[in-house]
Amino acid sequence: MSHNTFGHLFRVTTWGESHGPALGCVVDGCPPNLPLDEAFIQQFLDQRRPGTSRFVTQRKEPDAVKILSGVFEDDRTGGPVTTGTPISLMIENTDQRSKDYSEIRDRYRPGHADYSYDQKYGVRDYRGGGRSSARETAARVAAGAVARRVLGKDVLLRGAVVQIGPHAIDRSRWKWETTQSNPFWCPDPDMVPVWENFLDETRKAGSSAGAIVEVEATGIPAGWGAPIYGKLDSELASAMMSINAAKGVEIGDGFAAATLSGEENADQMRAGDNGAQFLSNHNGGIAGGISTGQPVVVRIAIKPTSSILTPVQSVTRDGEEVDVRTIGRHDPCVGIRAVPVAEAMLACVLADAKLRHRGQTGR
Amino acid sequence: MSHNTFGHLFRVTTWGESHGPALGCVVDGCPPNLPLDEAFIQQFLDQRRPGTSRFVTQRKEPDAVKILSGVFEDDRTGGPVTTGTPISLMIENTDQRSKDYSEIRDRYRPGHADYSYDQKYGVRDYRGGGRSSARETAARVAAGAVARRVLGKDVLLRGAVVQIGPHAIDRSRWKWETTQSNPFWCPDPDMVPVWENFLDETRKAGSSAGAIVEVEATGIPAGWGAPIYGKLDSELASAMMSINAAKGVEIGDGFAAATLSGEENADQMRAGDNGAQFLSNHNGGIAGGISTGQPVVVRIAIKPTSSILTPVQSVTRDGEEVDVRTIGRHDPCVGIRAVPVAEAMLACVLADAKLRHRGQTGR
Amino acid sequence: MSHNTFGHLFRVTTWGESHGPALGCVVDGCPPNLPLDEAFIQQFLDQRRPGTSRFVTQRKEPDAVKILSGVFEDDRTGGPVTTGTPISLMIENTDQRSKDYSEIRDRYRPGHADYSYDQKYGVRDYRGGGRSSARETAARVAAGAVARRVLGKDVLLRGAVVQIGPHAIDRSRWKWETTQSNPFWCPDPDMVPVWENFLDETRKAGSSAGAIVEVEATGIPAGWGAPIYGKLDSELASAMMSINAAKGVEIGDGFAAATLSGEENADQMRAGDNGAQFLSNHNGGIAGGISTGQPVVVRIAIKPTSSILTPVQSVTRDGEEVDVRTIGRHDPCVGIRAVPVAEAMLACVLADAKLRHRGQTGR
Amino acid sequence: MSHNTFGHLFRVTTWGESHGPALGCVVDGCPPNLPLDEAFIQQFLDQRRPGTSRFVTQRKEPDAVKILSGVFEDDRTGGPVTTGTPISLMIENTDQRSKDYSEIRDRYRPGHADYSYDQKYGVRDYRGGGRSSARETAARVAAGAVARRVLGKDVLLRGAVVQIGPHAIDRSRWKWETTQSNPFWCPDPDMVPVWENFLDETRKAGSSAGAIVEVEATGIPAGWGAPIYGKLDSELASAMMSINAAKGVEIGDGFAAATLSGEENADQMRAGDNGAQFLSNHNGGIAGGISTGQPVVVRIAIKPTSSILTPVQSVTRDGEEVDVRTIGRHDPCVGIRAVPVAEAMLACVLADAKLRHRGQTGR
Repeated sequence: MSHNTFGHLFRVTTWGESHGPALGCVVDGCPPNLPLDEAFIQQFLDQRRPGTSRFVTQRKEPDAVKILSGVFEDDRTGGPVTTGTPISLMIENTDQRSKDYSEIRDRYRPGHADYSYDQKYGVRDYRGGGRSSARETAARVAAGAVARRVLGKDVLLRGAVVQIGPHAIDRSRWKWETTQSNPFWCPDPDMVPVWENFLDETRKAGSSAGAIVEVEATGIPAGWGAPIYGKLDSELASAMMSINAAKGVEIGDGFAAATLSGEENADQMRAGDNGAQFLSNHNGGIAGGISTGQPVVVRIAIKPTSSILTPVQSVTRDGEEVDVRTIGRHDPCVGIRAVPVAEAMLACVLADAKLRHRGQTGR
Repeated sequence: MSHNTFGHLFRVTTWGESHGPALGCVVDGCPPNLPLDEAFIQQFLDQRRPGTSRFVTQRKEPDAVKILSGVFEDDRTGGPVTTGTPISLMIENTDQRSKDYSEIRDRYRPGHADYSYDQKYGVRDYRGGGRSSARETAARVAAGAVARRVLGKDVLLRGAVVQIGPHAIDRSRWKWETTQSNPFWCPDPDMVPVWENFLDETRKAGSSAGAIVEVEATGIPAGWGAPIYGKLDSELASAMMSINAAKGVEIGDGFAAATLSGEENADQMRAGDNGAQFLSNHNGGIAGGISTGQPVVVRIAIKPTSSILTPVQSVTRDGEEVDVRTIGRHDPCVGIRAVPVAEAMLACVLADAKLRHRGQTGR
Repeated sequence: MSHNTFGHLFRVTTWGESHGPALGCVVDGCPPNLPLDEAFIQQFLDQRRPGTSRFVTQRKEPDAVKILSGVFEDDRTGGPVTTGTPISLMIENTDQRSKDYSEIRDRYRPGHADYSYDQKYGVRDYRGGGRSSARETAARVAAGAVARRVLGKDVLLRGAVVQIGPHAIDRSRWKWETTQSNPFWCPDPDMVPVWENFLDETRKAGSSAGAIVEVEATGIPAGWGAPIYGKLDSELASAMMSINAAKGVEIGDGFAAATLSGEENADQMRAGDNGAQFLSNHNGGIAGGISTGQPVVVRIAIKPTSSILTPVQSVTRDGEEVDVRTIGRHDPCVGIRAVPVAEAMLACVLADAKLRHRGQTGR
Repeated sequence: MSHNTFGHLFRVTTWGESHGPALGCVVDGCPPNLPLDEAFIQQFLDQRRPGTSRFVTQRKEPDAVKILSGVFEDDRTGGPVTTGTPISLMIENTDQRSKDYSEIRDRYRPGHADYSYDQKYGVRDYRGGGRSSARETAARVAAGAVARRVLGKDVLLRGAVVQIGPHAIDRSRWKWETTQSNPFWCPDPDMVPVWENFLDETRKAGSSAGAIVEVEATGIPAGWGAPIYGKLDSELASAMMSINAAKGVEIGDGFAAATLSGEENADQMRAGDNGAQFLSNHNGGIAGGISTGQPVVVRIAIKPTSSILTPVQSVTRDGEEVDVRTIGRHDPCVGIRAVPVAEAMLACVLADAKLRHRGQTGR
C-alpha cells in the first residue's frame, strides 16, 4: 500500500486534516451505473458521530458529505449514478478548537506520534494531532459507503465491540440486534451495564481503555483475493492496522488458532444443497489468501488513548523532562469509534478484491 | 500490495512453484555498492533447511541460491557489489516427489486453499500444494538477505518461537542465545523439553500444532514509515499476514494492549544522554505509523497445518463426501519454519521504509 | 501509471470535473520544510488563465487555489512550510455554463471521447466534456507548483510553442524572453504575426489548429531516472501523452533522430572544468533512461480540437446519422494552453525522479 | 510504471542481464485456463533471432524459453493451461563473449548509458552494456506471447518498419504480407532494395542508422483504457519509450496531426451495420484515452546505435579525453529488432487494459 492510497482497482486516496477546513477522499475505479447520492453516504457518517453518547468525544461535528465528481443524473439515469470516473467526496469541518492544544505545543504526548513526527520531518503540526487524528476516518467511512454499492445487496457488513479493557463479551450470548441499541455496538446484552460502569469510572479517573473490535462480511462468494501477496487477509491486515491506535489484527480464530490442534482447527466440509458446506469457520472465511464463501471475520485490537488527564512523564522538544497533562475533548475509549471505520475498510478491501477477481477471471 | 510484489522503493517480486524446477525473486531498487554474494544469502537459507531436526519436514532440499543479475565484481570493487540494477535470485529445486499427492487430486484438504483455488480459477495444480506451499518462502528469505545489506550493520534482526500449541514460554526467562541451541528457536531453556515431548506426541498421533512467532529489529532510528497508509505497522501487518498459515499479527503489546489502561500502556519518556529515552515499549517501536527508535517487535500467529494422518471429512470436486487422509512429508508444526521468513519480511519492510524515508526527507 | 495517480514517491492524484463545483489534487510524499503558500501556486495558474488573449477560450475562470492540508506555519517556521504529510489543493469553479451543451447531449463529437465513454461505461456526463475537459489541467498545474519547490532554485523549467498548424518556428531565432511577450509562448519574434493571422482566419472559419509544444528543464544533475521501466523518458512520455489532445511525445531529436547516422546523433564528450562536457544534446538530456546532466528537452504534439462551428458528420446514441455543430466557447488552438501543463508534468516527473534517486542512492 | 514492472492487473516484471547466465520475466495476473506452452512463446522469440540476416547482430542466440511456473497440465485440461498464478519464464544465455568489451571498460560510449550509470550508481557493469542491452527484450517478447493469449484470437497484432535512416516507405504501396518476406519487416516492396543498399553501405562505413517502427492492433473493442492517467495512449507511450534507443512515440497521425485543421483531423462517423462506423482513423484507435474500436496504431522512433567503428570523441572515467572505437558485434540498425518488442509491448498494454476494463465494468 502506498502513501495514503490503498486498493488496486478500487482505489481510495484520502486527504485533509482534522483541524483544517475540510477533508475528503477520491474513490477511483468504481464501476459505472451504481446508484449513489449524498444521503446514502451520510448515513454511515452519522453512525460515527460523536456526541451520541457520553462515552465518546464531546465535539459536535455534523460531518456533512458532498459529492464533487463522479456522479451524474439526468432523466434517463433514474437517479444519480456513478459514471465510472473518479468520485471525489468532501467533508467540511465546522468544529475546530485549536486553543485546546497550546499546552502541548512543545511536549510529546506519550503514545502519540508527536515524537516520531518531529524525528521524521523536523516539523510538526501540533494542532489536534494533525493528520494522526481519529477524525481522518470520516473520509474512509465515506469511501466505505461507495464500496458497499460495489459489493451490492447480497453482501452484509456488520461490526461490534467484543471487549473493552479487561471485560470481554460472552460469545454465546451474541445478538447482532443488540449492537444497535447501545452506544458501544455491544452484541452481548449482559455486558452493556458492565461497560457503562467501567467507562464511567475510567472517564472520571481521567484514564482511558482499549478495545477489541470485530467486523464480519457475509454473502462473499468463494474466489476473491489472490494466492500470495494479493492475499485477501494480507490486504485486510494492512487496512485494519492503518486504523488509528490499532496494534493487532486477526482473521477467524486468529491467535487462538495457535493453541488448537490440526483436527480442532480444520474447517471440515460436507456435501450440501448448494455445493460444499463447511462445518465450522476457524479460518474466518479466508484460506490460502482467497475467500472460501464463508463469512469473513476480522478482529482488531485498539490500544487505549494517551490523551488523559493524569500527568505522565515526558520530554519537551529541547530534551527537558516535563509532565504532560492534556485537557481536551477526548474519548475514554477510541476503540468504540473504530467500528464504522473497520466496516468501511472491510468494504473497500472486498470491493477491490471483487473487481480484481472479475478482471482476472471474468467472474 | 500488488500480486506477488511488495514494497515501494525496495521492491520484491517472487516467482516459482514448490514442485517446479526452480523458484526465485527479483529485488529491485537496492542501493548500489553494497557487498553481496551467494554465500551471504545462503546462510539465511540454510537456517531454514528442513532435515535439521526430526520436528520439521523430512525433505532434503539443498536450496542453493544463484545470483543471476544485479551484482558485479572487478578488481576495483573489492568483492562483489550491487550495481543498483535489479537483483535476480534463483533457487533450483532438486527434491520433488509428486506421487505423494495423487490421492488428493480431487479431494479438498480442509484448511488448505484447494477449494478456494478451484472456485477462483477453475483449475488447480494439486501437486504439493502448488503455490501455497511453504517452500515458496525460500525466495523471500533470499530477498530478506539483500534487505539486511540495505539496513546495514547497526540493525540487528532476530526471531524466536514464543508458543507452540498451548505451551507458551515464560518471558522472564528469555535468552536470545538459547534460540540458537535448539531446533525450535525457543528462547526459554525450560520450555525446550516440553515442546519436544509435545511435538513428538503430536507427530505420532498424526496431528499438528500451531505456533506464535516473534521477531524483533533493534537499531532502527526514529522516523521510518509514513503517517497513514504507508504506516510501518500497516506494511508489516500485510507482509506477515502473507506468510503461509498466518492468521494474526500484532505489534508491541498487540491484543494485550486492549486490556491495559492508558497509563499502563503509555511509553513514558525521560531525558537521556542521546535524546529522549523511553521507559517502556508497549508500542513495539512504532507510534502513528512511524518508528520511534525503540526495538520494532512483531508477533505472528500460525495456525496448525492440515496435512495430517487422521482422516477428516471433506468433499470431492464433484460434491461427494469423502474422508481425506494425506500421507506425505509434513511438519507437525509449520510455525517453526516461519521464523526465518518473518525475519526476512521484517528486513524487507524496514529496508523499504529506510529508502522511502531517505527519498522523502534526505535523511 | 495508475488511474488518476502518477508518480511513485512524489505522488499526485487529481479529482474533479470541469463543470462540477470544484477540482483539485492531492500531492503526497513532498519533502517537509519547503516553503509553500497559495500565492506561489497561484502564479502558475494565472499563467494559464483564459481570457488573456483573443486566441484562447473566452471563459472567465479566476481559478483561485486553496491549500487544505499539508502546510503549517507558526512563529518558528518562518512562513508556511510543507509538513511532509499529504498536500491537498482545491480550486473552486465559479464559471459554469452547462446550457451550451444541450445540443450535443446525444451526439458524439468526432475526436472527443464521447463515443468511447458511452462504449466503456454506458453512461456519460455530456456537460462540457466532463472529465476530459482541458480545465482538469488546473489541478495538474497546481501540483506542478509544488514539484518546483521540490526541485529547488537550481532547476529552471521553461516552455514554448514551436509550431502552430503548418507554421513552424525558425529555431535559429529562438529567444526565451520572447515567449513572455506574446500570447502564444512563441520564442521566434518573426513567427508571432504569422500565427496571429493564421489563428484569426482559423477562428473566423470556425476551424481549429494543432500545435507542437516544447518544454525544457536545465540544472538537472546526471543520475535521475532508472535503467528500464522507471526510465525517465518513459515516465515523461506517459505524463505528456496524458495531456488532453496529445498524440505524440519525443525527447531530444525525437523522430528526427531516426534520419541521422550514428556519428551525427552521438553526443560526444570532452573533458571540461566540471567533469565531462557534452558537445551536443541530441539525446535531450536522457540516455539509457537516466538524466545526463544536460537540459531535458521534450516535445508534445497536440491535435486540433474538434469543437468547431462547421458541421461534421456523426451519429447519435441510437445510431442515426446527424451533423454536429458545436456552439460553445472554444479555443482555435488548445495546444497553446498545453504549455503550462507540460511544464507542470515535467516538474512532477523530475521531482519524483529526484526523490527516488535520493531514496535509492542517498544522493 | 514502477521499476522494471509494468501493468496493473496484467503485470510483467523482467530480470536478467545480457551477459549473465539467464534472463526472464514474471507475468502476474494472467487469467486461468488459457492454453500456453513453450512452443507458442518460442515462435515469437525466433522471430527476433539475430543471424537471420546480415543486417542484424552476428551473435547466435538460441533463446530457448522455459516455463517455470503458472502452467499446468493433466488429462483433464486438454493440454497445458495457465493456472491464474504467476507465470515465470526463463531464457538461458548460451552465447556470451565479454572480452569484446575490455577496451571500453573505462570509456564512455557516447549515446549509451555508460556515463549516466556511473553518475547515478557509482558502479557500472561494462560488459556488453549490462542491463541496457537490447537483448533484455527477449524477456519482453516472451511476456508479449502470454499477453496475446489474453487478447485472444479476434485480436490481430502486426508490426513493420516504415523508415530507415532518411528512407521512408510509400504508404500507398503498403502490403502486410511483404513484411514477412524480407529481413526488415518492410511492407513496401519497392523500398526493400533501397534499404539493403543503404544498410550495406552503412555497415561497411562502420556507421549506423535509425528507424521508425509502426505496430497495429485490430479487433480491439471500444472502451479499453481509462479517462486520464490510465489513458491507453499514455500507457502505450510509456511502454514504447522504454524500448532501448526509443526517442519518440506517436499515436495515429501523431506529430502530423499538429499540421492538420480540425476538419481534416476529425474521424467522422456514419451509421453502419454494426453500430457507428468511422470514416477515418487519424486518432489511431484511441480518443480521450479510451479505445474507439478502430485499429490501434503506434509509431516509435529509434535512434541510431552508437557502437560504431569510427572513433568518436569521449572521455574516460577520470576525465581524460579519448577516442572510442568499439569493435564488437553490432547492428547497423537496431530499429529493425524493435518490431517484435513493440508488438509485445502493445500486446501487454492491451491485455492489461482488457482486464482492467473487465474488472471495473464487468465487460
